[in-house]
Amino acid sequence: MMQERIYLDWNATTPLRREAREAMAAAWDVVGNPSSIHAEGRRARGLVEDARAAVATAVGGEPRNVVFTSGGTEANALALTPGVHGKSHQAIDRLVVSSIEHASVLAGGQFTPDLIARLPVHRSGLVDLDALRTMLAGGPPTLVSVMLANNETGAIQPVAEVADLVHEAGGLLHVDAVQALGKISFDIIKLNADFLSVSAHKIGGPKGTGALILASNQIGPSALIRGGGQERGRRAGTENVPAIAGFGAAVKAAVAAGNDDMASVETLRNRLEEGLRQTRGSVIFSQDVLRLPNTTLFGVAGLKAETAVVGFDLEGVAVSSGSACSSGKVQPSHVLEAMGYGSDMTKSAIRFSLGWETKDADVDRAIKAWRKLSSALLRRDETVLERF
Amino acid sequence: MMQERIYLDWNATTPLRREAREAMAAAWDVVGNPSSIHAEGRRARGLVEDARAAVATAVGGEPRNVVFTSGGTEANALALTPGVHGKSHQAIDRLVVSSIEHASVLAGGQFTPDLIARLPVHRSGLVDLDALRTMLAGGPPTLVSVMLANNETGAIQPVAEVADLVHEAGGLLHVDAVQALGKISFDIIKLNADFLSVSAHKIGGPKGTGALILASNQIGPSALIRGGGQERGRRAGTENVPAIAGFGAAVKAAVAAGNDDMASVETLRNRLEEGLRQTRGSVIFSQDVLRLPNTTLFGVAGLKAETAVVGFDLEGVAVSSGSACSSGKVQPSHVLEAMGYGSDMTKSAIRFSLGWETKDADVDRAIKAWRKLSSALLRRDETVLERF
Repeated sequence: MMQERIYLDWNATTPLRREAREAMAAAWDVVGNPSSIHAEGRRARGLVEDARAAVATAVGGEPRNVVFTSGGTEANALALTPGVHGKSHQAIDRLVVSSIEHASVLAGGQFTPDLIARLPVHRSGLVDLDALRTMLAGGPPTLVSVMLANNETGAIQPVAEVADLVHEAGGLLHVDAVQALGKISFDIIKLNADFLSVSAHKIGGPKGTGALILASNQIGPSALIRGGGQERGRRAGTENVPAIAGFGAAVKAAVAAGNDDMASVETLRNRLEEGLRQTRGSVIFSQDVLRLPNTTLFGVAGLKAETAVVGFDLEGVAVSSGSACSSGKVQPSHVLEAMGYGSDMTKSAIRFSLGWETKDADVDRAIKAWRKLSSALLRRDETVLERF
Repeated sequence: MMQERIYLDWNATTPLRREAREAMAAAWDVVGNPSSIHAEGRRARGLVEDARAAVATAVGGEPRNVVFTSGGTEANALALTPGVHGKSHQAIDRLVVSSIEHASVLAGGQFTPDLIARLPVHRSGLVDLDALRTMLAGGPPTLVSVMLANNETGAIQPVAEVADLVHEAGGLLHVDAVQALGKISFDIIKLNADFLSVSAHKIGGPKGTGALILASNQIGPSALIRGGGQERGRRAGTENVPAIAGFGAAVKAAVAAGNDDMASVETLRNRLEEGLRQTRGSVIFSQDVLRLPNTTLFGVAGLKAETAVVGFDLEGVAVSSGSACSSGKVQPSHVLEAMGYGSDMTKSAIRFSLGWETKDADVDRAIKAWRKLSSALLRRDETVLERF
């Protein structure tokens, strides 16, 4: 019997929600360019503005401060623009990013490498607030970028505390909330962030759209993609109307179902972790801090993550190794390196991430697959076998 | 009887082709991230690479030199990056754009305004080659951006001649081919362009994707959106798999149907122009040079384009005024200003653009609507009426 494939790689491969499909297919028949003044153009404009309101509501922002982009990566690139200024109108030309950020933040947007510093993290996976205080002390106003939840460990960062330090030092805070949206509730005002990035396809919306949300229309980066008055001059280019409509529908569905879905997901995730912990020498990273309800980053010294992912694949279980957002190559996890782990662990980490359709039986199969793979893949086990 | 609406605004509001819809809906079920190494990821990768080959074939390029972006505007912004270097490895820090380019090229990408010069055009709507020769003479190597066909007049520019001048002076040529793709045949090698921008939604593909095609993998701008190895490091961010698949399907359909479709369109367009020419004092811009087969830019001194567009809208005919790609406001046409027309004409221009589904009866209705509107809207006609 052919077994159904199981997806425990939702952080990378979230399926498209029914609501988003329907909204997009309907938007396909709205041929208008939202900038055109005839009836078709006005109808397209309406779809975009409805989605803008939905995204704003989901993050506690105002619709006029939502800037649609082609995704989370572009939203991050837009936020990290030198010369951005705060309420003091002083242009900011220094960037601090945490060392566990997504590649698009680590790259520093349009900041040149000499203007970028990296904020260390503790072994727990949380950013080091004392180090941040030292980095900001006496320096020029700084743009700081700290993610709300890490994409590999799921560790939820102390963003409000970071915001206090940054603002006391006259700087601005960008928060990459791509992984957090739809999994935990948050609010741009309570977080005290100045800009916040989100992505549609991580919440069951379409690929190809995301947004940068500004806390205030008084503060914001200048456009990265220029020429054309779209998005109040903050992002040029014909609006991707169907994708934006799908984003709006997905965010409404995610917010409506969020708490219930995520409570079930957390229960399943915890059971998966119980199963994984049976392997001697295994580690669940960031397990002692607050994490996203759906994510487990798991490692065993000596395991090769790439081989394990292929092994799971052959068993019909899609999982991910470290960060999936690279060019198809499996690299040692930069997140675990930043947390102080050695190469035995940074190359071993496998990420399980669960979604709203994950079932009890999926967790059973993943645990079963892991037992089979671990005995085959862990050299230690082979040694043990040889002894008998 | 409610009359069906007619679209003679295809350059702004091309409908989505059936082939693109089907490809996108199918891609929705491919949940993989193309960078993931499991089966789902590999399947998504296959869709992207198939589309890449189709786009390359359509423009005579190589698949590995196709960089997918979020659309034509981003492709233009990516091309216009200071520091781009040609085969001589000399970094280029000066930009010349023709004065009839799309807003995203006029904005100059990441070049600061002091490094951008504008190439004038003749009253015919074609770029001034003598002026270009003078601008390039003795100067530093220059990146020049000249579009293949203008989006307002449809005038096809002498790109190969421009390429010769630019390359003789050690520079590079970017060609915005967004309006030309699917309407005329061209080839990046024969045009002798170094980079070429295209957009999916102008050929019946989805909004939200486009590409920059490089003539060689040895020449190219550094990434505008960085962090992540996608698109050979030239454009970071999770690939918009469904949109890219839709782009591939649309470009295949457009290439397959192109010559036949466009021959019919040209016949209809010419008949429309015969009708429009009946109005005394009317002008069809760039009518004496080679134009796209589907585009007519039409003006009458004293007509207010905005009012005319609304009038056509009420008659059930969607047309466009000047360039539609702005923030919903109707501005005087910068293209006609560059061609040397005064404000009586630059504010009067209406663009008709026809598509592969435009019918004989649509042209009849447009001509009829224009007769009704022109007698109401042209002050001169009112004066005439008063006399009787």
